[in-house]
Amino acid sequence: MIRVYTGNGQGKTTAALGLGLRAHGMGLKVYMVQFMKGIKECGECEAVKRMTDFDIIRFGGVGFVRKDRVTQKDKNLAHQGLEQAKKIVASGKYDLIILDEINVALDFGLIELGDVLDLIKATPKKIELVLTGRDVHPEVIKVADLVTEMKEIKHYYKKGVKARRGLEY
Amino acid sequence: MIRVYTGNGQGKTTAALGLGLRAHGMGLKVYMVQFMKGIKECGECEAVKRMTDFDIIRFGGVGFVRKDRVTQKDKNLAHQGLEQAKKIVASGKYDLIILDEINVALDFGLIELGDVLDLIKATPKKIELVLTGRDVHPEVIKVADLVTEMKEIKHYYKKGVKARRGLEY
Repeated sequence: MIRVYTGNGQGKTTAALGLGLRAHGMGLKVYMVQFMKGIKECGECEAVKRMTDFDIIRFGGVGFVRKDRVTQKDKNLAHQGLEQAKKIVASGKYDLIILDEINVALDFGLIELGDVLDLIKATPKKIELVLTGRDVHPEVIKVADLVTEMKEIKHYYKKGVKARRGLEY
Repeated sequence: MIRVYTGNGQGKTTAALGLGLRAHGMGLKVYMVQFMKGIKECGECEAVKRMTDFDIIRFGGVGFVRKDRVTQKDKNLAHQGLEQAKKIVASGKYDLIILDEINVALDFGLIELGDVLDLIKATPKKIELVLTGRDVHPEVIKVADLVTEMKEIKHYYKKGVKARRGLEY
C-alpha cells in the first residue's frame, strides 16, 4: 500500500517514525531513507541504532536546501537516496519502507516524477511504502492508498522558539 | 510546551509515537497514557517493552467506545487514566508525556474540560505535553503552543481494507 504524509504542519516525519515503531513492535522490518537531511544530530537515528531491523539512512548535505538555490550536489545526493530506495524495495527484505521528505526532493526538482512513480509501481502490494514531505505531487496522490494532510493550525516557532533537541531533531 | 495532534486523518497517535522515538534517541524520558484503548494487540506497546524510559500504559475496555453509548465503566477507566497522567506529570521524571486520545475522551464526556485544563496548567514549561485525538476542544487549542490538524485526504479503509497488524495497531 502507498501512504502519503504531506502538508505544512508538524508531524509528517514523526508519523512515519511512529508507524515504524508500531511495525517494529509487531516484528515487521522497517527501513527509512531520509532525503535532504544531512549530518546534524538526529534523535531517531540514535534510537534505531539500538533496534534490530529498523534502519535509517540519510542522504543530504549539512545545511538546508533552498528551492531557488539547488546545487548539483543536492541532486546527486537525492539520486543516491533514490537508488538506495530502489535497492531496498527490490531486496524484498523490508515490510515498511519510508521515503522521508521525498515529496520535497521532487518538488525542488532534485529528482524526477517519472522516477518516483516507477519506484511506486515497482513496490509489491505487501510492502507498505510511505512518502513524506510537504507539496506532494498530484500524480503521487492519485496512486496513493492513504493520504493525510498535516495542516498547521498553530506552531510555536512563530513565537520565536528555536528547534529543540529530542523534539524537532 | 503543549502540543496537539487532532483531525479526522490517520497519523495522530503515530506522530506522537514518532516524537517519542526521537526523544528517546536523545535520552529523554517518555511516557504515554492511552485513553479508550483496551486490551487488543498493540505494536507500540510491544516495541517499548524493549526500551528503557519509554513507557505506555493503557486505560480502556476491550471494545470501541461509542459516543451515544458511554458507560460508567468507560468513565471510570478514563478517570484512572487522568489520575495516572497527573501522577506522571507531578513526578517530574518525564520529559515528554503523551495523552493519547484524550481529546476524544473529553469530547465523549468521559472526563471534564476543567480537569484537562488543570492538568495542562499543572505541567511545567520544560515538559512537552502532547494531547492527541480528533475533535479537540477549542479551549485546549487556545492554551496549546503547537496544533496540527491531521486531515484525511484519502484512506484505504474506504476501499474496505481492514486494520492490519503492525500498521493500524
